[in-house]
This record gives sequence, structure tokens and C-alpha cells, in this order.
Amino acid sequence: MLLLAVKAINASNREFLSQNGITVVTPDTITDEQIPKIVISYAWDNDIGEKILSDPNSKLKWIQAQSAGVDYLPLAQLKERHIIVTNASGLKATPIAQTVLSYILYFSRGLNVYATRHHWEPFTNQYLINELPVLVFGTGKIGQQIAAHIKAFGGTVYGVNTTGHDVPGFDAVYSMSNYQEALVKSRVVVDGLPGTKHTENFFDNQFFEQVNQLYLFINIGRGTTLNQNDLLSAIDDSRVKYAALDVTTPEPLPKNHPLFERPQVLITQHTSWGEHVNAGRTGGLFHLFELNVPSFVSQGIIEHNVVNLEKGY
Amino acid sequence: MLLLAVKAINASNREFLSQNGITVVTPDTITDEQIPKIVISYAWDNDIGEKILSDPNSKLKWIQAQSAGVDYLPLAQLKERHIIVTNASGLKATPIAQTVLSYILYFSRGLNVYATRHHWEPFTNQYLINELPVLVFGTGKIGQQIAAHIKAFGGTVYGVNTTGHDVPGFDAVYSMSNYQEALVKSRVVVDGLPGTKHTENFFDNQFFEQVNQLYLFINIGRGTTLNQNDLLSAIDDSRVKYAALDVTTPEPLPKNHPLFERPQVLITQHTSWGEHVNAGRTGGLFHLFELNVPSFVSQGIIEHNVVNLEKGY
Repeated sequence: MLLLAVKAINASNREFLSQNGITVVTPDTITDEQIPKIVISYAWDNDIGEKILSDPNSKLKWIQAQSAGVDYLPLAQLKERHIIVTNASGLKATPIAQTVLSYILYFSRGLNVYATRHHWEPFTNQYLINELPVLVFGTGKIGQQIAAHIKAFGGTVYGVNTTGHDVPGFDAVYSMSNYQEALVKSRVVVDGLPGTKHTENFFDNQFFEQVNQLYLFINIGRGTTLNQNDLLSAIDDSRVKYAALDVTTPEPLPKNHPLFERPQVLITQHTSWGEHVNAGRTGGLFHLFELNVPSFVSQGIIEHNVVNLEKGY
Repeated sequence: MLLLAVKAINASNREFLSQNGITVVTPDTITDEQIPKIVISYAWDNDIGEKILSDPNSKLKWIQAQSAGVDYLPLAQLKERHIIVTNASGLKATPIAQTVLSYILYFSRGLNVYATRHHWEPFTNQYLINELPVLVFGTGKIGQQIAAHIKAFGGTVYGVNTTGHDVPGFDAVYSMSNYQEALVKSRVVVDGLPGTKHTENFFDNQFFEQVNQLYLFINIGRGTTLNQNDLLSAIDDSRVKYAALDVTTPEPLPKNHPLFERPQVLITQHTSWGEHVNAGRTGGLFHLFELNVPSFVSQGIIEHNVVNLEKGY
């Protein structure tokens, strides 16, 4: 069975694959003959991926995405061809949740003021975590980790997901069409939504018109879920006090973009996933991938991190 | 029984005192005749305090300090005269511990870089809390709260106190004369020491010579415990990478002080205690004070937050 390693696989992991009857080829060395024989794509590259999918004899069965969001994959086409996609959901929940807490504490403890203050002028207009209830859109692994941190600080945290079904760790969970009751009680909103056609521009003027002096708006989901101009308007008329954005549209954000110019906005340039132990954006990806290998090889079954190609996450 | 309210006491708290037979006078309205009759000083003012102590007929029995540290009180004289001092230890443990976490996450999640970066240049040299073991000097209420937060993030936290006696919540506790084993395992040092003759200049060249690439040095104790010039040297030759100081010598720190000029140093200007619910430096002080009132009035006994005047904390 042939696996295309778009992301590097080290020697011991290759040995594990070999024991499962899987041979690794790389984009550099792959031959035209091997293209249709690829069964697994470990991470995804659009150029070579297109070649594989356009081959009528392609044996591609499984794509292990290198990210939690999979909006850059040709999902409709993959669904039609019964190709299974697994994502990296959970892989970066720990660092991203820590970054979310860093945002909240950065503003609430006044570090945003002190970071650039080079003279003595004390700033005491500070908050405790329990004075800033948090509403998290997206109750998956990242949302749950954020909720756990907020609770550990004695805070209040609400969740929002499609149906409003209960998720452990949140004080209450609301649905995407009925979150207003939680919004009025919240001072911090975390956008942790995946990029789908349903979430595009979800955070727009209509959303921001519902808030008044929201303390902090955070985006660690997808840039597409937020209308940045509408956020800027909301900041400029004080409906939103501060914003912390890990994702933006576009990336990179051009120099002199208004988001760079507003002192109320902190931008972490799509690096909320950073850590040392698993350095690099996909560090640790193989640990997720390998869980599915034995059952896939023996029975064609994949159980963990399977993406619903209809929903897109 | 007369109480001098150096800090304001509101109507309902005055009612509580009145029910316990205590009459409130304030520095503005006190008469010379009342000076020797003061039994309790609620908070301490040096000028009026000196007047009270120099009166041979003074009935002063109890000082409720407005702070956790009491190094500004004439401790030797108070001890000689058997005057009991209670401090505000614990009152600001929650906000101060949150500020300590804000410092750690500020540097570890790269916010120190992004706070002033107005162009796209991603910074991924980030750490997780569990990659940065923390050593806290001072295992009182603030230290314990810091430890709880570090553990909630999956981190490692060691404590240091005078004798090395065990304190719940720390992975291990060491003594002030034997902390080196923990120091070599730690990447973050928190100075939470009280200001006493034993702690003066504790963090000096001799201390910093023991560290190599310490990630972060934090001072939320007393400015006097740190030799700031030695810290600056340690930063300049990379023994210490970053520093976050809530307390400094002097306060206010003068403009153009080298600590203000180093980009590696964050200074929060003695406001780590900030919060909204109990706004103001001594917000909530009465809640600590009132615990001791009934037993003091009926039996002369004070049980909570009593300072050891020999040790000074």
C-alpha cells in the first residue's frame, strides 16, 4: 500500500508503517506510475493532490489533513469519491487554548497598557477572569480546553454549537441560532468556528449590533468567519473595546492595514499553535494519524478524527 | 472602644462595629484627647501612628495593616509594646496570581513580540506552560494560588520557604538555604518574598550567577528583595532572558530608568492587585478585619492573619 508523505515522516515512524505493509513515497521522488497507486495522502498538497484526483485509476482512499480546519480541500469531490478525510483536531488544542488565555489576561491585567508605557503612570482599571464571562463559539477540543482554563480561574464560560447540545465543561451551551441570552451575559467572545459556508461572515455588523461595550473579541477560528471591516466599526464606536486575532483575511495582512493601526487590536499572525516540544505547525501529527493505521490496513476502517464532508468539519 | 479609621469604613460596617461596642473616629476629626484612647488602628498612617505610639497613655492594642507586607511599620517597637498586627495577606492573592500568569503567558505565547509588531512577521518561538517549570519563593497565600494555576495548566511548580516545610499544591518545597536543586530544573523564578532583613537583596549577582538562560524572572514580592542592577547585568549577558516586575526601587521609578529602556522588561507599576469587584488597593480589607472583631472585643483574642513581629511577616 502506497502512502504519499507530503509532510516528512521520520525513520521510526516509517518503520511502523512498513510493519503495517505501507510504503512511503515523497513528492520529490514520486513517479507518474505511482500517482494512481497512492492510497493514503499524509497531509495535503493542492498541486500533487489535483494530479491524483484527476487520474481515473486513482486508488486514493484516505487523506490525513495537517490542520483542524479542512476548508482548503475539495470536499464535495472527495465526498463523491468516498475518500475519507481525517483532520488534526485536538493536535493544537493545548497551545491555542493557552494563547486564548494569554489574550484575556493581556487585556484584563493591563499588560496592553504597560507593554508600551515607558514612564510611571499606574493603570488600575483591571479585571479578574471571574469578572469577564466568556462565550465560546465552537465546543470542540479547542473550545473545551478554553472552558477548562476559564473554570480553573473561577470564571464563567458558555459554549455555542450548531444544535446547542450539551458539552461537559461549559456552564451552559446554546445553539448557533439562539445564543443571544448568553451573549448579553458575556464580556468576552471567542470565535472558534470552522470555515464553512454556514459560518462565513457570521461575525458581521448584525452580530456586533447586539453587543454593547463587549470587552474582548477573539478570533482563533477562521478569518472567513469574521467581517473585519464590521469589527473595525464596532471598535471605533465602542461596541467592542479590544480584539485579539490569530487569523485574518488575508494572510499575510498587508503593511498599514487598519487592523495593524488600531492600538485596541492584538494580532498574533496565525501562530497560536506554537510550542517547543512539538515545534512546527504539524508537530505531533503522526501521533494522531497512527491511531487509525492498524484498523484501516486490516479492515478499511477509520475511527478517529473523521471529517463530516457534508458539514466540512 | 475607639477605632481609628485610616481607611474609610462604610455605613453598614460601622453598624457592625457599633454592635460590637466600637466607635469609629477618623484622622480628620480626631481630637488630641482621643489619641491615647485609640485601641484599634484600621490601616496605618505613619504620621498619626507616631503620635499614638509616642503617647505614654496610649491604649493601642491592634493594628490592622492595609497590605500583606508590613515592613513599613515600626515592628520592633510594636513587639516591645505587645501590640498585635494583622496583615492583609490573602486579600489580593487572586488578582496577583492572575497577574503572574499573565506575565508568563505574555512572554511564552509571544505577545511581547506582537504587542509592538505592526507588520506581518510570524514569531513561533513559543512555549507551553508545561515547558517552563516555575520556582516560587514564598509559599503563602499568593504563592499557593500561583501554584494552583500552574498545575491547572499542566505545569510543574516548586516552592521555597524558610524551612522547606511542605505546602500543599507544590510539586516539592525547598528551603531558602537549599533551593539550588529546584533552580536548575526551573525556567521561571517568582520572587514573592516579604521585605525583611533576611530577604534584602536576596536576588543579587550571587543568585543570578547560578542561572543560565533563565526564561523569566518575576518580582511580585518587595522591591528591596531584588538588586535591580544585578538583574540588569544578568539580562544583558543572557543569564536571564525576560523580567516582569510589579515592584521596583524606587517607586515611582524615574523616567529614563534603565528598567524602562530594556525591551526584555515588563513593569506593571505596583498594580498587580487590580480588580473591579473590590476596586482600590484595600478593597475587601474589612472582610478580613471583621473576622477578628468579636473574639477581640469579648476576650482580647486575635486569630486570623496575625503577623509574627520577630520575623516581620
